[in-house]
Amino acid sequence: MVKQLRAARTRQALVHAAAETFADDGYALSSLPAISRRAGVSAGALHFHFPSKDALAVEVEGAARRSIERMVAERRPSAASALHLLISVTGDLLAMATTDVVVRAGFKLSVDPSRKNGAGFACWWRTWVREQLLRAQHQGELAEGVSPDRVAAVVVAATVGFEVLCAADRDRISPQHAEHFWTLMLPQLTPHSDEFAGLALSES
Amino acid sequence: MVKQLRAARTRQALVHAAAETFADDGYALSSLPAISRRAGVSAGALHFHFPSKDALAVEVEGAARRSIERMVAERRPSAASALHLLISVTGDLLAMATTDVVVRAGFKLSVDPSRKNGAGFACWWRTWVREQLLRAQHQGELAEGVSPDRVAAVVVAATVGFEVLCAADRDRISPQHAEHFWTLMLPQLTPHSDEFAGLALSES
Repeated sequence: MVKQLRAARTRQALVHAAAETFADDGYALSSLPAISRRAGVSAGALHFHFPSKDALAVEVEGAARRSIERMVAERRPSAASALHLLISVTGDLLAMATTDVVVRAGFKLSVDPSRKNGAGFACWWRTWVREQLLRAQHQGELAEGVSPDRVAAVVVAATVGFEVLCAADRDRISPQHAEHFWTLMLPQLTPHSDEFAGLALSES
Repeated sequence: MVKQLRAARTRQALVHAAAETFADDGYALSSLPAISRRAGVSAGALHFHFPSKDALAVEVEGAARRSIERMVAERRPSAASALHLLISVTGDLLAMATTDVVVRAGFKLSVDPSRKNGAGFACWWRTWVREQLLRAQHQGELAEGVSPDRVAAVVVAATVGFEVLCAADRDRISPQHAEHFWTLMLPQLTPHSDEFAGLALSES
């Protein structure tokens, strides 16, 4: 039991160290020795858990995705609608970008040209955003003539842009940016824009 | 004279090949032999023009910037105002992202963690966008209470996001996205949003 716990902790330390290294140096320059050193574990322990750098990157991408899915699950009960959920999740996402290196690394890896055959993290995010906008349209939340596809493209570009700029320039991107983004977008998106004021500011 | 012309052509071929390689593989994995092969010139010719990979990247970043500055200079005479100029330049920028690999590489390099000490291309773009919004505010184009800084952060995130996603997923990003972005943003930004309809769609 103690052994299992220790193994789980080592694994977690490796994923965290890998995310930091991928986000700081990019996929190509990240070396397994640098990652095991950063995690404070031996090269042997790293190889026991992850046979390759690709396996580590797949795990970081998976962990980033699970982090967002967990956050969506937490927000869902209090979200009155699909649009409400989308707004609060994007707010949380930008808040996490500054504190959660795994999520930041997931976005960075998805646009890192040296990471070939990535897990398509940005693609998964686009699909999720589009689904919420289709649900919002179905629920009658979107103003007439608003295209869920077009809005999804803008939301995904802005969130990916914030995440990768945040990585490049951490001090100048703040979670408030999600709120500013929605303040500008919402009045065109929905006839009920007043109901959504402040939702993108993280409540936690 | 013929010799000078040939040298200029070689240099241009090298910059283009370097931009393609940086955009496809990232800075870290781009090798000088791969770039000279792609340009169809000898390793000696490459070294004659550029002593290092860093020198090539600096040149690509400079060429991307000059490309945008040229486009701004072309748009300026027909732009009735600062906001008009900003909208048509962002439209051109997204149109160029799919066709001009040098501009795309400039944006990619600016968020590539393996490119340390880059020329800050995204930073330069942010400064330009912010200047136009400050000019727009000064000219009375912005609605009351609209903050040029906040809008600049959103515009920069969206354009950088479109550019880097475009590189990852070229088929699914189209120049129309700039138009959709402004259609959603403008009514909050300015009391005169009707005057700007269609401006982001490239006229050339």
